[in-house]
This record gives sequence, structure tokens and C-alpha cells, in this order.
Amino acid sequence: MTVTYSSKVANATFFGFHRLLLRWKGSIYKLLYREFIVFATLYTAISVLYRFFLTGSQKRFFEKLSIYCDKYAEQIPVTFVLGFYVTLVVNRWWNQFVNLPWPDRLMLLISSCVQGRDEYGRLLRRTLMRYVNLTSLLIFRSVSTAVYKRFPTMDHVVGAGFMTKYERKLFDDLKSPHLKYWVPFVWFGNLASKARKEGRIRDSVDLQTLMNEMNKYRSWCSLLFGYDWVGIPLVYTQVVTLAVYTFFFACLIGRQFLDTDQGYQGHDLDIYIPIFTLLQFFFYAGWLKVAEQLINPFGEDDDDFETNWCIDRNLQVSLLAVDEMHMNLPRMEKDIYWN
Amino acid sequence: MTVTYSSKVANATFFGFHRLLLRWKGSIYKLLYREFIVFATLYTAISVLYRFFLTGSQKRFFEKLSIYCDKYAEQIPVTFVLGFYVTLVVNRWWNQFVNLPWPDRLMLLISSCVQGRDEYGRLLRRTLMRYVNLTSLLIFRSVSTAVYKRFPTMDHVVGAGFMTKYERKLFDDLKSPHLKYWVPFVWFGNLASKARKEGRIRDSVDLQTLMNEMNKYRSWCSLLFGYDWVGIPLVYTQVVTLAVYTFFFACLIGRQFLDTDQGYQGHDLDIYIPIFTLLQFFFYAGWLKVAEQLINPFGEDDDDFETNWCIDRNLQVSLLAVDEMHMNLPRMEKDIYWN
Amino acid sequence: MTVTYSSKVANATFFGFHRLLLRWKGSIYKLLYREFIVFATLYTAISVLYRFFLTGSQKRFFEKLSIYCDKYAEQIPVTFVLGFYVTLVVNRWWNQFVNLPWPDRLMLLISSCVQGRDEYGRLLRRTLMRYVNLTSLLIFRSVSTAVYKRFPTMDHVVGAGFMTKYERKLFDDLKSPHLKYWVPFVWFGNLASKARKEGRIRDSVDLQTLMNEMNKYRSWCSLLFGYDWVGIPLVYTQVVTLAVYTFFFACLIGRQFLDTDQGYQGHDLDIYIPIFTLLQFFFYAGWLKVAEQLINPFGEDDDDFETNWCIDRNLQVSLLAVDEMHMNLPRMEKDIYWN
Amino acid sequence: MTVTYSSKVANATFFGFHRLLLRWKGSIYKLLYREFIVFATLYTAISVLYRFFLTGSQKRFFEKLSIYCDKYAEQIPVTFVLGFYVTLVVNRWWNQFVNLPWPDRLMLLISSCVQGRDEYGRLLRRTLMRYVNLTSLLIFRSVSTAVYKRFPTMDHVVGAGFMTKYERKLFDDLKSPHLKYWVPFVWFGNLASKARKEGRIRDSVDLQTLMNEMNKYRSWCSLLFGYDWVGIPLVYTQVVTLAVYTFFFACLIGRQFLDTDQGYQGHDLDIYIPIFTLLQFFFYAGWLKVAEQLINPFGEDDDDFETNWCIDRNLQVSLLAVDEMHMNLPRMEKDIYWN
Amino acid sequence: MTVTYSSKVANATFFGFHRLLLRWKGSIYKLLYREFIVFATLYTAISVLYRFFLTGSQKRFFEKLSIYCDKYAEQIPVTFVLGFYVTLVVNRWWNQFVNLPWPDRLMLLISSCVQGRDEYGRLLRRTLMRYVNLTSLLIFRSVSTAVYKRFPTMDHVVGAGFMTKYERKLFDDLKSPHLKYWVPFVWFGNLASKARKEGRIRDSVDLQTLMNEMNKYRSWCSLLFGYDWVGIPLVYTQVVTLAVYTFFFACLIGRQFLDTDQGYQGHDLDIYIPIFTLLQFFFYAGWLKVAEQLINPFGEDDDDFETNWCIDRNLQVSLLAVDEMHMNLPRMEKDIYWN
Repeated sequence: MTVTYSSKVANATFFGFHRLLLRWKGSIYKLLYREFIVFATLYTAISVLYRFFLTGSQKRFFEKLSIYCDKYAEQIPVTFVLGFYVTLVVNRWWNQFVNLPWPDRLMLLISSCVQGRDEYGRLLRRTLMRYVNLTSLLIFRSVSTAVYKRFPTMDHVVGAGFMTKYERKLFDDLKSPHLKYWVPFVWFGNLASKARKEGRIRDSVDLQTLMNEMNKYRSWCSLLFGYDWVGIPLVYTQVVTLAVYTFFFACLIGRQFLDTDQGYQGHDLDIYIPIFTLLQFFFYAGWLKVAEQLINPFGEDDDDFETNWCIDRNLQVSLLAVDEMHMNLPRMEKDIYWN
Repeated sequence: MTVTYSSKVANATFFGFHRLLLRWKGSIYKLLYREFIVFATLYTAISVLYRFFLTGSQKRFFEKLSIYCDKYAEQIPVTFVLGFYVTLVVNRWWNQFVNLPWPDRLMLLISSCVQGRDEYGRLLRRTLMRYVNLTSLLIFRSVSTAVYKRFPTMDHVVGAGFMTKYERKLFDDLKSPHLKYWVPFVWFGNLASKARKEGRIRDSVDLQTLMNEMNKYRSWCSLLFGYDWVGIPLVYTQVVTLAVYTFFFACLIGRQFLDTDQGYQGHDLDIYIPIFTLLQFFFYAGWLKVAEQLINPFGEDDDDFETNWCIDRNLQVSLLAVDEMHMNLPRMEKDIYWN
Repeated sequence: MTVTYSSKVANATFFGFHRLLLRWKGSIYKLLYREFIVFATLYTAISVLYRFFLTGSQKRFFEKLSIYCDKYAEQIPVTFVLGFYVTLVVNRWWNQFVNLPWPDRLMLLISSCVQGRDEYGRLLRRTLMRYVNLTSLLIFRSVSTAVYKRFPTMDHVVGAGFMTKYERKLFDDLKSPHLKYWVPFVWFGNLASKARKEGRIRDSVDLQTLMNEMNKYRSWCSLLFGYDWVGIPLVYTQVVTLAVYTFFFACLIGRQFLDTDQGYQGHDLDIYIPIFTLLQFFFYAGWLKVAEQLINPFGEDDDDFETNWCIDRNLQVSLLAVDEMHMNLPRMEKDIYWN
Repeated sequence: MTVTYSSKVANATFFGFHRLLLRWKGSIYKLLYREFIVFATLYTAISVLYRFFLTGSQKRFFEKLSIYCDKYAEQIPVTFVLGFYVTLVVNRWWNQFVNLPWPDRLMLLISSCVQGRDEYGRLLRRTLMRYVNLTSLLIFRSVSTAVYKRFPTMDHVVGAGFMTKYERKLFDDLKSPHLKYWVPFVWFGNLASKARKEGRIRDSVDLQTLMNEMNKYRSWCSLLFGYDWVGIPLVYTQVVTLAVYTFFFACLIGRQFLDTDQGYQGHDLDIYIPIFTLLQFFFYAGWLKVAEQLINPFGEDDDDFETNWCIDRNLQVSLLAVDEMHMNLPRMEKDIYWN
Repeated sequence: MTVTYSSKVANATFFGFHRLLLRWKGSIYKLLYREFIVFATLYTAISVLYRFFLTGSQKRFFEKLSIYCDKYAEQIPVTFVLGFYVTLVVNRWWNQFVNLPWPDRLMLLISSCVQGRDEYGRLLRRTLMRYVNLTSLLIFRSVSTAVYKRFPTMDHVVGAGFMTKYERKLFDDLKSPHLKYWVPFVWFGNLASKARKEGRIRDSVDLQTLMNEMNKYRSWCSLLFGYDWVGIPLVYTQVVTLAVYTFFFACLIGRQFLDTDQGYQGHDLDIYIPIFTLLQFFFYAGWLKVAEQLINPFGEDDDDFETNWCIDRNLQVSLLAVDEMHMNLPRMEKDIYWN
């Protein structure tokens, strides 16, 4: 379920964003608390080890190691690498949202341009609409784990009413070593063309508008598939992850409070809890979590797209629009500004 | 009300932007003065505490803490994180503006291509136009708090003349668990198709141009809805807010003027007012305010889009264009460059 | 007048860009010399004050202040903030250029698809073309100060031949509290539709191509209007300006040459003229000037768009194309590569 | 073969990305292990030289040299240059993916709008479809080394069934000094136009939709060709490579552990293995490898596009869709939500 | 001639990019060797001056000056400014490439939809195609110095067969103070409209598809013209150039090896050749050269677009496609996968 908070920030008010810091659902805390516990535990363990178990010379070595780690931790360009990477991930995520296939454009055209209130007309419109929904369902099954869980086999697709048994048989009979999500889309084209011949679609202008919309719909579908198929190169993700993990590994040692008596520069205060390092953990690990959450928006994270809901909504709404609402118009009346 | 200042900066002049620094409406001062007061008060309180109430050893501890905070404050990558985040927010904001639905393209087509100066023709054009406006109104109600306040129920929509009572009834009769903003849009399609059958729209070419425009209009509407529904991931906003707040928290302690007699490096001057820290507060908090203002441009900030004005303008102008102006052309005359 | 220098940099040559440094028109020097004089004068004044008028202890205080200012000047993230801001401004500026409305696409269609070399045909084509030009003129009047100066009232518009007196009357008679730049655009649609009925435009395909182009044209116009109406949020501009001004304020004090005898770190040289600070002034103030110049490209800067020239060119060229050139084709001859 | 890992990161889980660090295929390790071995060997060689073979004064010189190198290594803006460059490369790579020509849109139209289940109709549809596939094959041969290896001559193209012998002859007979990949595309247009005359394509609306799609398809093809032809300017790639190589060269000397007895600042620890430098090698060299892999996505890297697979899939699927599936529709049945 | 190296980097291999470092054509060395020699000479001159000609106290002054310069050299934000600027230039450059006008889309339509294999039909198609090529030639003459050299006058245009003498006369007779590159484009529209009346173009659908393509073609042309006319603001280019030049000027003095006996910090090594400064020269000056090369891609640099080649290719190929290939189809045969 997408986490919507825009109504909370409609107006820029006194410390406007601070309220957002107190949410749990979809929040940085919920996403990070486990990693945070691990990090804090390790830090404490090393701290205890240093303070109570090491001998004098071991302490001196540890102190040098700590300063060494701290120096190099600062050289790791975490901010920059994360900045570019997250920008890339966020752009891809938004493009995937924008390309979610919605059948609304097609349902307008089918509802208005496929004629006949008789049973054959209704059947025609509903079948066309079903093919549209089936096309996107087949894509969503490949792309989204949530949808795949709900429709693990084609039987489930048939069972949910997206496909009839007869269609299933024809679908299975087509011999192709490749994915067949384009099949209902070709059925759509041929059925529309048949309807044109039978006069249910008035002329080629109407027909081609339908075809163009269907092609647009299919392009959205295949773009989603493309985003899933060709992700951000693994190397890039590994580089970023490695940079962030290295940084925190270096911080575990480098950000320990050292014995203030030794007089190391910048180490004349011991407050036990490395508050800024913990906050830095939240920034950087949180920023990486943004990427982790968005890199595949079709999972089951708090912030992922609700594809199963989309599928239901689209089927319900589009059948309603092309069947019940076909030529079922409100009586025209003069509006209140008439003259 | 959007704050327009472009005419003030038409020409690049001597210290051209300095005039902008003296405005109040929509300005950084108006947005930030409360936070600024809180920040300055806290800073002063800590300063007073340090100068007058702490004992010697407490002072020494505070001084070490201050230096510690200052050191880490500089490591917080506020600039970078804000830079990437604000760029993202500004892009989304502008895309929302560009996708505001304007009925002008549709009103041109309806005015020119739906025939008949008789009452039925007028009724047809006005009703089509009303459906267009109704579609966007329903979306604006979900998206904008200002519009929602004005139209809290469907009764208000009917009362304002966007919908007739009969339409309201039909609308309510449609059973769907999902939002129904697409309903007037399907009515539009069916009514246009009916007008085509009755010869009020001449042929399929005219009809499909109308349909395409309506689909474009609906896409703008649903994109607006999408921007509202799927915001920037909460985690990202939290990361940025946390970074900025942490920075200022660190500054409260780390940017205190320490006792110059103690000889801390960089602390040999005490001018009581940390002028640069206060200015930094304006930069960073101001930059964050940019994001806060733009993240939901449909609120009631000084810089938010005037959706209620848009709704009124669109209805008034579009009814004028399709009714009174239909085939009401000025007499053609030779222009002054004729031959 | 736009400053074009691309022919100067067609080839990458030995120190290729250095020639650009010697231009005056539209140059950084012309834009900045006044600010530069102010900055240099202030710097000199402070320098003289420090060197000749301050007492010893005042000098010591000033030196501390100078070091303090210098330290914080370096912490102001001018580069970063300017980088993001200027990128935003430049993108907006270019989009405005790309969306300048040119009537060339429409004049091709009107010249080819509105039939008749008789007077009525000519009148029809010229009137349609005039409406196109009138639409953009009305927008330019709102957007550009230069155009507004030339056409302060509708009388000037009528006087320049963009509108007839009769059209003016009809225009004024339309009651609307909103801007009426869309009126000629509706006239265009209705006139084209009338021409279709009279057979001057052959069929709906020709008509709708015209309508689509007109809608495209109007979208360019309204996008220009949008860029003018909804600018970059004032807060953002203020943040950037404040950052740059603060930086230079800090430099005035912090970049003074201090008494080399006092042995302050990095202050063992006194060359009187702070050459690098002056150059930095040119970078940063110059970069800000880029933004200042481009934020409203419809003013009268050296680099602003020549909207008045556009208006004249468009009217002259488009009337020529639809009238004199209509069906006035060169005799077809075999080209020199025939067989 | 593209490395797909999106299903691995569907949900943001506990240390979600760490699993990605353990993959071999397409990973940073596979890409970099050779360079890493070279780098580590050189580092070790220098280290051994310094520790065991240099005389005292040579050691002192080496130490100074090392510090000098280290200082300048930090000034090389590797992160920044790589950030901008990789962003550019990634954008180009993704645009190439998005512009891969898929014949699905065309096969829908040919299957629906080219009439006739007789042999001539089938031949017509198959031939049109073959021309489409041939167009992209000719482009892929220029662009992709993998495809070129598979189809080194036009004989291979004929042999694989993309072209008949007769077509080959006509193709060779056309005299042009330029590439001829556009030839099948002109055949397509003329054949479609012929089919229109023979009534196999019903009217101009159907025909022009086909033409538009074909033009779109060709634009994808030529854009791919453009990306191959006009790459990122060599100078840019050289600048980046030089920056990274220089950095690592400087690191080889500058990151050596120096004799701790000499008391050089930051050199009081000797742990033999420069763990952070090695990790930095992975970041920066890995980041550059991202660019190296993506700059030409038509090679045979793990992450390159599988063009040969595309070619086979497209031919098989598109012939199936236009031939076997033409007007071979499932019987229409009432769906389970009927009433 | 564009420098293509993509086939060299098809696979990411062992030190994959190092081969690119050894090329001369279009390389950083070819572009920079002259500047490099100047820089190295000046550096050496100053070095010699300092080492051999200055007196003791002059040396001391020079050393202070050198340290002063070095300190400020590091503060010049060359990387950042160059990063943003080059990104802008590269984007513009690529957009110009993408908008180069190719007549392939138009030649498909003219070849298929303008009927008649008789002489008049051929003349019609060739003339239409010639107008298309003439339109882009006129634009290229304004934009590209290379094309302007080849066609300095309209006589050359006529001589090369792009225009007949009669057309030239008509062209000259049109009175307009503005550029007239749009004239052949209006001829195209009128000629196509005439062909429609004579039945050579079957109906308005065919005609309007042609018109739309021609408008698209013209938009590419005028966008190219726009890129040439309104360049990156001069101030921006000056700011960047000034920053880079200042940086190198500061390096000339600041990066000298100072007398190691004076014990200046970081100056305890004298290796005569400032290897890292020279490499930095290559980075920064090379990066600026990227901009210099791409800012006007229509010159005669190694990496510039080959406009003259384009013009020839387009004319040859398009005349071939519309004349010889018109309805000259290969005999249809069953492909090898038939059944």
C-alpha cells in the first residue's frame, strides 16, 4: 500500500515537516530499526572490548587503527555516489508509475464507438475490454511478486474470470518458445476488425483510434516488462552498496571514543553514545533504503504499487463503463447558468 | 495565490535581485520567521546558560562538547542531500502545473464541430462542456484541500451547477467500490457518439478528434491524481528533514562562542551574535521550505496553485466559448496590409 | 537582441574560448562592471580603514573578525546552490524558447488546404492567419515588457492591423472577468468550420489537421503564459541571492590582507589587490547574473528573446505564404539528376 | 544475457542489498578481478621494494614522494567526474533499450487490417512482416558485434529466411554509395500501397496507420544507429579514464604504509594491507566499469542486450501473429461477471 | 567526421578503456597539445626564473606568493562549474544530433502515396522530394560553416541541382526582409494539395499524413536553427572559461616546487616535473575542450556532424526511393518458414 502523506503537507507551516518524523508506517524507523540494532550492538561490543578487555598496548594499537579508519571513512564519497544512484532509481520508479496501464482511455472508446445495446453488442464490448485487462494481467504476473502469488498458474487467471476456458485452450495451442502475453492483444485487434466488418464499429477512423489506444496500452505494458527485465546494472548497485557498507564498517572502529588521556586530536571528549554517527547511519542507510524500496516497486513494501488492487479496479470499472453505462445517458437539462 | 515576480526581473540590472530580498509575500522571511525565532531563542538560552550558570568544569565539558558538535555538524551533507531532494520536488511541482487540466482545447473543438444554433445544439454543447469541467472538479476535490473545503459534498457540486440533480442520481446509482471520477468522462463519450448518430457531429473524424482531446484531458486529471496518490517516498523526506534538523541541533551547541581565554583553535573572537550561523539557518531552512511549499502545490500556501480560481475560470470561459460564441463570427474585412 | 556567438566557436581551436573573453556585448563585464566597482570600492575602503585609521587593539579585533569571516565564507555552499539553481533557470529559459509560437506549421496548412484564389478565398486565408497572429500577440502583451510597451492598449493592436475595428467591438462585448486571449482562437475554429461547410476546406480530415495545429499553437502560447505566471518560487531565488550576497559580504572582511607581522596562518603575504577574490566575484556574481538574465527572457536584456521582431516576422511571412504564394507554384522541371 | 535481479529486491528487507554482494554473474568481482590482481601485485611490489630493497636515503625520498602523491591523489576529482560521466552513459544506455525496435505494434495492425485468409492474403501479411524484421536486422548488423558475427554476409541473412533470393538481387541492384538498410522499408510502403489498391487494405485510414507505425519503427532503428554512430565524444571518455587511472597510479605510491618510526603525520600505523585503498579501487574502478559495460550495450557482456534473441523472437512471434492468428478468434462467451 | 569508437568498447574487458587512451584522432592529445606546450613552457620559464635568476629575498617573496596562489587555486570550484556546464553542452549537442532532418519518413510516404509511374508522376515525386531536401539545405547553410563554404551563394544551390533556375527566380521575387528558408516548404504544401486535386494523391488522409511529416521535418530544421541562433548565454561560457583559465594561471605560480630547505609545509620534495599538475591540466582543459567541441557541432572539428555528407546522402537516397523504387517491388515468394 502506497504511503500517502501529501494531505499532511498541503500547507507549509511552522516546522511543517516535523510531523512527518513521527510516523511509523513506511517510515525510516520501520525500515531501518533492525539494521540500526545490529549496528548499535556491534558498536557497543567493540566499545566494551576496547574499554575493558584490551591490554595497554592493544589499546594503543586499537587507537591508531581507529584514527586510521576514521580518516579513510571521511574519504569514502558516500554522499555523492548515493546522490547520483538514488536520483537514477527515483526516476525509474516514477516512470514505472507513470506507465502503469490504465484501461480508462480504451473503455471510453469502446463504450462510445462499439455499437449495439443487444446481447451481441454487450458481449463484444465486454470481450474487448476483457482482452485489455488480460494483457496487463499477464504482464503483471511476470513483473510483480504480489500478483504472481495471487495468480500462480493460468488456471487462477481463468478462475478469476479474466479468460474463458476456450480462450485458455487456444492460448495453450499456440506454439511459441517465447512469452505469450501479446496473444490477447492480437485477439483484440482481430475482434475489433471483425466488429468493423459487421458494422458494429462504424468506420476505419473509429477502428484505428481503438487500435492506436490498444497499441499505447501495450507499450505501457511492455515498458513495465522492460523495467523489470533490464534493471540498473548489478555492478552499479554493488558499487553503491559496497561504498555504504564500507563506510559503516569504518565507522564502527573509527568513531569509537578513544581514551581522552592519550591526547589524540579531536578525542578529548567521551560521551559513550556516538550520537552523530548514529544519525549519519540514519541518513545514509535511510537514503540507501529509499533505493532499496523503489528499485522494484512491484513487491510488497509499504511503498510499493498496489498492483492487485489495480487489477481488480480496472476490471470492475471497465466492465461497468462499457456495459451498464453504454448509451445510458442522463437526460439533458439546462444548466443553472443557461442565459 | 501564486507569487508572480517575473516582471520585476525582466531586465538584469544593477544588483538586480536585491529588490527581491525586500518582499514579504511568499518570502523566506514570512515562511521562516517563526522557526527563526525558536532557533534564536534556543541559541540564546544555551549561550546564557554557558556564560552565566555553568561552573568552571561544566564550562570545560561544554566547550569540548561544542567543539565535538561543530566538527560533526560540518560532516552532515546537508547541501548535497537538499540539492538532490529539492531538484526532485521542483520537477514534480512543475510537472503538476503543466498537467493542470485546461478545457481550452476541448472548447475550441466543441464550439466548432458540434453543429446547430438551436436550443438542442446549445444544450448539447453546454452539456458536453459541463462534463469536461465536472471531470476535473471531481479530481480537484480529491487532490486539493482548498477545493475540498469549497465542495465538501456532492451536494455542493450540484449546487454550483456542475451537475444536475438527475445526473447526481445516476452517478450515485452506479455501484462501484472505487472512485467514480471517470463517470462524467464516459457520459461525455457516449453523448458525443449519440450526437454523431444524430448528425450534430458531422463524421467520425470530428468525433475522434473530440475523443482524443477528452482522453488527453482525462490523462492530465489522472496524472494530477497520481502525483497526489504516490508522493515522494516518505523515507526520502524523512532523511532530508532529519539531516537538516540534526544540522541545526548540532549548530545550537557547536556554534556557541567559547571562552576566548581557553585558547581553543578558531575560538579567539566572541561577537555574541553568530551571524553566519543565522544566515546558514536561512539558507538551509529556506531551501527545505522550498520543498515544503512545493511538495503539495494544492494547499493554501502563498505559492500554491489557485485551483478554485481555475475551476471558476474554466466553467465560465468554456460555456461562453461553446454557447454565445458558437458561429458568432466577426464580419470578415480586408486587413490593412491587403495588397 | 540575442547574442549569437556560435559561429565564433564552430571549430575547437588553440585556446578556442579565449576570444569569447574579449567581447563586450552580452558579456560578463558589461553585466557586472557596476557591481564590481561597488565591491572593489567597499573592499578598498575597509582596507584603508584597517591600515591607516584603526588603533592597535582595534586592528587586533579586526584581524580576528577577518579570520572568523574567512572561515565561515568557505562554509557557505555558494557553488552548489548556484549550480542547482542555474540549471533550473537555464532549463526553464530553453523551454520557453522552444515553446515560442511560430505560425509556420499553420501557414503551410492554410496555404495548401483552404481553397480558392478569388477574393473570398484570400480573405478567408488572411483572416484565419490574422487570428493566429492575434492569439500570440495577446499572449506576448502579457508576458513581455517590450511588447507591452509597443502595444500598451488594444487600440495599438487594432492600429497595427492585427485586429479590425469590428473584431475589437465583438471582443469587448464578450463579458468575462478573465483574460480573453483565447477569443481569436475560438473565432479561428468557428471560421474554419464555416469554411468547411462552404466547401473551402475540403473535408473533416483537412479541417481537423488545422484544428490540431491551432491547438498546438495555443498550447505553446499558454505554456509561455504559464512560465510567466508561475515562476520559480520566490523563496528559492531569495535563498540563492542571500547565499551569494552573504558570501561577498563575508569576503569583504575575511579576504583583507592582514598585517604579516602578526604571524596569522596564511597571512604572510600582502599584495594589496586580492586578485583571487576579485576573480571569485566574477565567477559567482557572473553565475548569478546568468540566472538573472534568463529568469525572464522577455525583457530587454542583451540576451533576451526579440519578441517584437518575432511578431513582425510572423505576420509578414505568414500573410505572404497564405496569400501571394497560394497555388503560385514554380513550373515543374526535370532536375539535373533525371535518369 | 542481461543480468536480472529485480525479483531478488522486490521487498526492502533486513540488509536487503547484501545478498546482491554475493553474486558472481555480472558482478563487480567478475568484471574487476583481473584489474584488481594487477593493482594488488603492483602495490605489493612497491611495498616490498620500499621495505626491503631501498637504502635509508632512498627510503626517505620515497617517503616524501609517497606523501606528495597522497596529497595530490586527494585533489583529483574522480567522484565528481565519474558521477557526471556515468549519469550520461546510463541515460544513453537506457534510451537505447527503450528504442529497441519491437514489431508488436505493427503485427497487431497487419494482423487486423490486411484482409484475406487465402494464400495471397497470407503471403501479403507474411511478406510485410518480413520486411519489418529485415529492416531491424540490417540495423542490428551495423550496431551489434554479436549480430554481425551471426550474419557476417547478406548470404547469411538470406539463409536465415529474412530475405528471399529475388529480394537479395533487387537489393544488390540498387546503386547507392550509402547504407541501404532503408530499402526493405520502402518496399514495405509500396507493398502496403499496392495492397490498398487491391482492396486488401480497406482504406487510406488503415493504410496510413500502418505507414505511421512503420515510420515509428524505422525511427527506433535509426536512433539505435545514431547512438552507435555518434558516441560520447572520445575526449570525454579519455578525460574520465585518465582521471581514474591517474588516481590509482597516485595511490600505488601514495597509499603505501610508511615507516612508523619516521613520525610522518597519519603514518603511525602499519597494517600491511591497505584495506581502504583496495575498497576504493572497487568503488571507482567499479563505477568506471559501469560506464564501460553500458557505453556499447550491443556487445557480448553479461549485461548487454540479447539482440540475437530479440531477432529470433521477433520473427517467430510476428509471423505467428499475422498468419496463424489472423481472424482465428476464440468463440465469444459470456464472462463470469455477466449481470 | 565523427569519431566512432563504439566497436572498440563493445565488451568490457581487462582494462577496457586503456586502448582508447592511445588514439590520436579526435583525442584529447590532438586537441590539447598546443595548449599543453604553452602551459609547460610558461611553467618551466617561471621555474627557471625562480631557481636561477631571483635573489634571496625575491625568492622568499615568490615562495609566499606561490603558497598564496596554491591556497586559492584549490578554492576555485572548477570541477563543479565544469560539471554543470558540460552537462548542459552535451545535452544540447545530443538534441541537435537527434533533430538532424532525415527525409526517410517523407520518402516512404511520397514513394507509396503519390501515384503514377508515368513521367508526370515521377516529376511530381522528385520535385516534392527536392523541396524537402532544399528546405534542409537552406537551414544547413545558415547553421553550418562547412555547408556555407560549399554553397556560398544561391547559385551554388542551383548548380548542385537542389533548385531549378525558375524556382530561383520565383524565390528571389518574393519580397520579405526575413530569411526565406520556409519558401520551398510552402511550395511543397501547395504542390501536394494540387496533386490531391489531380488525383495523384488519393484522398485527404494521404495528403494530411504527408503534410504532418513535412511539418515535423520543418520543425527539426527550425530547431537546429534555434540552437544556432540562441546559444548558451555568453556570460555562462565566460564564467566557465574564466574559472578554468584562472585556475591554471594560479597553478603556474602555486604549483612550483619551492626550495625544500625553507621547510614550507608540503614542500619537502622537488621532482622538477609537476606531474599531477600536468595531469590536472589534461583533466580540466580536456573537459573544457569537450564543451568547446560540442558547443557548435556544425563546424569542422573531428567530432562534428558531417553535414555535407548528410546533404548528399539525403538527396541521392531520397530520389532513388521515390523514383526508381516506386512500385518496383520484388516478386512475393513464400518464405522458408511457410507452414
